[in-house]
Amino acid sequence: MGLGDGAVAPVMIATAPVNSPLVSVLGGGQLGRMLALAGLPLGIEFRFLDPSPVAGAGTLAPLVVGDLGDVDRIDELAQGATVVTYEWEGVPADGARAAARHAPVRPDPRALDVAQDRLVEKETFQRLGIGVAPFVAVDERAELERAVDAVGMPAILKTRRGGYDGKGQHAIDTATDIDAAWEALGGVPLILEGRIPFTRELSVLAVRCLDGDTRCYPLVQNEHADGILRVSTAPAPDLTPELQAEGEAIATRLLDELEYVGVLAVELFEHEGRLLANELAPRVHNSGHWTIEGAETSQFENHLRAILGMPLGSTETRGYSAMVNCIGTMPDADAVASVEGAYLHDYLKAPRSGRKLGHVTVVADTPDARDERLHAVKEVVDLHLR
Amino acid sequence: MGLGDGAVAPVMIATAPVNSPLVSVLGGGQLGRMLALAGLPLGIEFRFLDPSPVAGAGTLAPLVVGDLGDVDRIDELAQGATVVTYEWEGVPADGARAAARHAPVRPDPRALDVAQDRLVEKETFQRLGIGVAPFVAVDERAELERAVDAVGMPAILKTRRGGYDGKGQHAIDTATDIDAAWEALGGVPLILEGRIPFTRELSVLAVRCLDGDTRCYPLVQNEHADGILRVSTAPAPDLTPELQAEGEAIATRLLDELEYVGVLAVELFEHEGRLLANELAPRVHNSGHWTIEGAETSQFENHLRAILGMPLGSTETRGYSAMVNCIGTMPDADAVASVEGAYLHDYLKAPRSGRKLGHVTVVADTPDARDERLHAVKEVVDLHLR
Repeated sequence: MGLGDGAVAPVMIATAPVNSPLVSVLGGGQLGRMLALAGLPLGIEFRFLDPSPVAGAGTLAPLVVGDLGDVDRIDELAQGATVVTYEWEGVPADGARAAARHAPVRPDPRALDVAQDRLVEKETFQRLGIGVAPFVAVDERAELERAVDAVGMPAILKTRRGGYDGKGQHAIDTATDIDAAWEALGGVPLILEGRIPFTRELSVLAVRCLDGDTRCYPLVQNEHADGILRVSTAPAPDLTPELQAEGEAIATRLLDELEYVGVLAVELFEHEGRLLANELAPRVHNSGHWTIEGAETSQFENHLRAILGMPLGSTETRGYSAMVNCIGTMPDADAVASVEGAYLHDYLKAPRSGRKLGHVTVVADTPDARDERLHAVKEVVDLHLR
Repeated sequence: MGLGDGAVAPVMIATAPVNSPLVSVLGGGQLGRMLALAGLPLGIEFRFLDPSPVAGAGTLAPLVVGDLGDVDRIDELAQGATVVTYEWEGVPADGARAAARHAPVRPDPRALDVAQDRLVEKETFQRLGIGVAPFVAVDERAELERAVDAVGMPAILKTRRGGYDGKGQHAIDTATDIDAAWEALGGVPLILEGRIPFTRELSVLAVRCLDGDTRCYPLVQNEHADGILRVSTAPAPDLTPELQAEGEAIATRLLDELEYVGVLAVELFEHEGRLLANELAPRVHNSGHWTIEGAETSQFENHLRAILGMPLGSTETRGYSAMVNCIGTMPDADAVASVEGAYLHDYLKAPRSGRKLGHVTVVADTPDARDERLHAVKEVVDLHLR
């Protein structure tokens, strides 16, 4: 009759276990969903707030439907929570602060203030001695030529607030692009950034816990197309101890400055052998999805450990990993399953052009085997934008 | 502003994605819960049937509350399912067959017929040339002495149906135990089994898919106390290729005989260098929980792949693993988190003496490091029965 560990004898469980920590999350997209999938085995309970009644995390835990800045809904979300966190840097900082009446909000909403304004973000990098591309604030049309002179061309004009996945940006490669760039974006506070001819894009993910203990994952190499992340390779190829140390120093300075608790991602450019910070994301990050199978502790579990005041888990790698985003369309699950060492993650989102619907991670014992598996997965995942 | 991959802009998703496979599961305990946790990232949807309204899987997917043999509830469970499976070998075989009106039931309920009757089980082993301890059916008091003579002492008297976790059994070490054994169990069909002075307990987990492709995990060494599994070590220490081959041959013969689709576990005794089959479990199994972190594909994902007609995943190990069950009480989560390479799984069940509430898996790159981590986890997990 077997050991019967699945025994479901018709005996009522008298009471549900108490003392489960409750993590309330502002935002219920795929990052919230993956936080839940990491936390549910640990006995953590979740509650989400999202404007969409079909938000992906809502099939795993109670979902409060409402605007992320709606104080009544935030009260509903945060009541009784052990801790409140967020899975999107666009969460209104005031909304996050409103939740603090009920439970600690981690990371501190200060991180949102920095992440939500590209000018404040770049100034923070600069103040902490972190390299950045040249930048100038641009509020009026008359300032734009002077700004272009200051940072040089090619440059990129961006809204200070609200852009993501390549939106709210306009390239200025020659003086003839200036008018079109202003026409596209003018009227809101802007920032002009010099476009650095970087060697490659990298990111560093780090986690800091309540007592200040900090751990970093190995730097990851990222490939974007049309402003959307396509492939991350971990560890980044040709990652030297010096480059890793430089990335860790950048992350650590930011974590300490912001008295940060949780996972922080910093997007970086490698330029002439040095790192420049591009932007930060005060949350778990797409370039860290490989950690689910490719690290001893995933970014999702480590974020939960940090915000719940638990000891951090090891950020050591398990083999060599790569992650491919599924954009606009999901690959055939059987075809992915046919690739050894490939792990499919379907966010159960409705297909839509340019939308992140899932990802596939490959892990192998050697970089060569990883590259082979990555190649096979790329063949299966439609990498063309829809 | 980050890449915004967690973007939850206030845009309604028009329709939920269609074509997600739906797996309906008879039983909603921790095995069902772990099936769901393995399948949700793959975009698989679940529905469970369990007598308890607070069954563990019910927080992850819709739960039909009812008896596992109640045909109306089974209709509710199985309607619209892609496939029906079970997570307990005690599921009434007729209930499983009732579900087949709606969708294929995998593994075939024949496996339940075999697993639910110790006599049929042993006869099946014997018919397939698989070694077993001596056994004799005992239906009446008068037959017991003759049975004891036939199998020798020490022996163990068991009910043919319904026992698990050491229940429904009575040892007969000397002739003076015979009366007490009959008194405890007599009145239902029984089986007397010789107690083999085995070297150790092992198990083999294997998975067979629709086209007959079969894969085995490495044999696992199991330690029981009071009839409940305490620790599994994977691969089993000193596992020779010959022993692995013998275990795989046993599993494969059973899988082929039963035209089995899904994961099957066979509990084994190692005795004088050979394997004897003790019992089979037609489902994912406690001695395979280590595969979540310790194998390329977990037993849960491979069971789902098999029953959904997908290609099987690799059963290769990732490092060296061990699993410790949490019986009656859960360990302190922070203390577990302090052990590097330790993974806590909390089933969120109400504490009760002798009840499996969770498990902790440790993984490391070498057997020695694994043993060190196992030792640390054992210190944290209360191994005493409650």
